[in-house]
Amino acid sequence: MPPNEPRSHCPINLSLEIFGDTWTLLVLRDMMFGGKRHFREFLESDEHISSNILADRLARLVDSGILTKSGDPTHKQKAIYSLTEKGIALLPIVVHIGAWGSHWVPDAKKLDAGARKVVREIQESGPRGWAKRMAELRTEHLR
Amino acid sequence: MPPNEPRSHCPINLSLEIFGDTWTLLVLRDMMFGGKRHFREFLESDEHISSNILADRLARLVDSGILTKSGDPTHKQKAIYSLTEKGIALLPIVVHIGAWGSHWVPDAKKLDAGARKVVREIQESGPRGWAKRMAELRTEHLR
Repeated sequence: MPPNEPRSHCPINLSLEIFGDTWTLLVLRDMMFGGKRHFREFLESDEHISSNILADRLARLVDSGILTKSGDPTHKQKAIYSLTEKGIALLPIVVHIGAWGSHWVPDAKKLDAGARKVVREIQESGPRGWAKRMAELRTEHLR
Repeated sequence: MPPNEPRSHCPINLSLEIFGDTWTLLVLRDMMFGGKRHFREFLESDEHISSNILADRLARLVDSGILTKSGDPTHKQKAIYSLTEKGIALLPIVVHIGAWGSHWVPDAKKLDAGARKVVREIQESGPRGWAKRMAELRTEHLR
């Protein structure tokens, strides 16, 4: 995982030092397409992330300014995670990774109908489609 | 790293089981934008990948059908790595990761002029720009 001094200042490398692992983008997927906002919800995903890895990744995402963590007004004991503008800007990356896997990995299960619809809409409409979904995420996540 | 049985059949997860680490996409970056094709060339990148990690990642990329490895007709002792169509299809992901890092990570060094020009052209022209760059990669990499 990332050392204090980046390996290089190439923007691709700096990005990968933040989210270049097998778990971080799954947490973002769950927020962007699964509407998940609470610690327990992420634990329930099919990949069975462990609670210590999840806690580590959420803390890193908050440190990186991709998520914010705050008290959930509807559940006094729960924290709620929200995407920041910097986090919402990762949407095109997540969509392209899903599109690539869906097309090129032989055992990719078909997405469920809801996710398929979102991805198809976003892909077909290109940057305009991302802008629409990003606007929805802003409404849901930003104050 | 990926177990034999995937953690889930979500296309995003399956993709990340292939390239979700801090090194694999740097190798692809070097091929897509640095014109690198030989083992030694990858070792020379600023991030100083170690030769055992590099050997592991190249072998995985070949196993995944993203690269092919063959004898270099101009250097009898050298292997040359080529992108496949499946590998070239990763271009939009690499471009978006670079664009995000360039915009959002404070210490992202400006790309050098050549890389900046390529990324700007690709971004400004959207999918048509990717198609052009992907066509160039096909000419260079596919037989």
